[in-house]
Amino acid sequence: MLSKNEIKFFNSLKLRKFRIKHNLFIAEGEKLVFELLQSQIKPKIIFTSKIQEFRNLTDLNAEIIEVGIPEIKKISQLVTPPTTIGIFNIPDYILDIKEIESSLTIFCDDIQNPGNLGTIIRTADWFGIKNVLCSEHSADIYNPKTVQATMGAIASVRVHYVNKIIFFSSLNKVLPIYGTFLKGKNIYETDLSDKGIIIIGNEGKGISCETEQFVTERLFIPSFNTDNKSAESLNAAVATAVICSEFRRR
Amino acid sequence: MLSKNEIKFFNSLKLRKFRIKHNLFIAEGEKLVFELLQSQIKPKIIFTSKIQEFRNLTDLNAEIIEVGIPEIKKISQLVTPPTTIGIFNIPDYILDIKEIESSLTIFCDDIQNPGNLGTIIRTADWFGIKNVLCSEHSADIYNPKTVQATMGAIASVRVHYVNKIIFFSSLNKVLPIYGTFLKGKNIYETDLSDKGIIIIGNEGKGISCETEQFVTERLFIPSFNTDNKSAESLNAAVATAVICSEFRRR
Repeated sequence: MLSKNEIKFFNSLKLRKFRIKHNLFIAEGEKLVFELLQSQIKPKIIFTSKIQEFRNLTDLNAEIIEVGIPEIKKISQLVTPPTTIGIFNIPDYILDIKEIESSLTIFCDDIQNPGNLGTIIRTADWFGIKNVLCSEHSADIYNPKTVQATMGAIASVRVHYVNKIIFFSSLNKVLPIYGTFLKGKNIYETDLSDKGIIIIGNEGKGISCETEQFVTERLFIPSFNTDNKSAESLNAAVATAVICSEFRRR
Repeated sequence: MLSKNEIKFFNSLKLRKFRIKHNLFIAEGEKLVFELLQSQIKPKIIFTSKIQEFRNLTDLNAEIIEVGIPEIKKISQLVTPPTTIGIFNIPDYILDIKEIESSLTIFCDDIQNPGNLGTIIRTADWFGIKNVLCSEHSADIYNPKTVQATMGAIASVRVHYVNKIIFFSSLNKVLPIYGTFLKGKNIYETDLSDKGIIIIGNEGKGISCETEQFVTERLFIPSFNTDNKSAESLNAAVATAVICSEFRRR
């Protein structure tokens, strides 16, 4: 049985300021919790109606609390409440500039929608991208909606928040910085490197001018819509997918 | 000033059964409303705080109601209420099998999430796909969240709901039917036609067995994640983007 204080504490983690204060985040769903348990991210508390599945886990340095479905309903944000919800420590990843300079990295330039950010992380994982960087004004990766949308990719992709100017200024000048714009080289016909930074712009405003100054390769994704009426843009996660697919298929 | 009955009627349209009963749907936002006004979709009522922008529109066979932002707040589902909300007639598109057989079409096989369906329509529009077919158990394209996620593409892409078995049985047997599976031909190395049906499977279950029996070309999108841990799948709209990009770029 969850106490009022436990429920209150849990619900406080739905807000960023309390996630930062306690350095904790929520992950809902048995599959997601198990994926996180297999990662380097450390669990703190697991609420579950399937306690037997956690009994055999040795080395599990977390409190396991048995709860019924009606109690999970009280704390879950999902339409169909899961059997298991975990509270995990926010990992403290160290940004390795040498690694960034020798691989392909996504930079989210003020991505606002939590679902979009989560889907970008999931897409990055599929395309073997190990690091996703976010500008300070991007959505919070530890927002429960974002965690959910990553579908477990949060367990393997390392997400770092950085100051745009400081980050881009610190990079080796020969590293290509890719951005997509309304005008640029057709992505389907351009040589693409296997290392560099791919910038994904904000949903409404695109790439910010602070970031744009660092772009060395201006790309564009052509539309195949011949009406010229609508189809003005792609969803941010969809654009990420088209771009990553082009970088990786070659 | 909106009456209680007007607000009640408006809110009823957030539910599918009332949309079907009245054959109407809601579109929020000035840009979206203007795009719909330029399409074949017929408006019924426009609520707006920018009445002057609609005064000059001749041939506008719709009731224009001036409302203040506080009133729009009462009916809007968006976090930031828009200046304009429209109620439009659900269009009655005729499915032209000859057109389907001579072009590229997306078939949504029980897509459940309204946002995903909307993003699929938006992506289809970008890649010049004119028709999107949905199985009867797919989300409703006229759900306000779906309409919103199309970002105006609902004005140009024709969406039809069909019975899977009847639809696929009615097609010319030489038309390729593409589906992506865990095993199949690598999409990056396979010849792809400029006509045919691309099936997008349900978010959790993938392509249904009723639909799978009609698939003639089994494709797979390779993952570039070498960990083999997570990255088990792509979001449905993201997969649509990767597939459409491959079909169109060649």
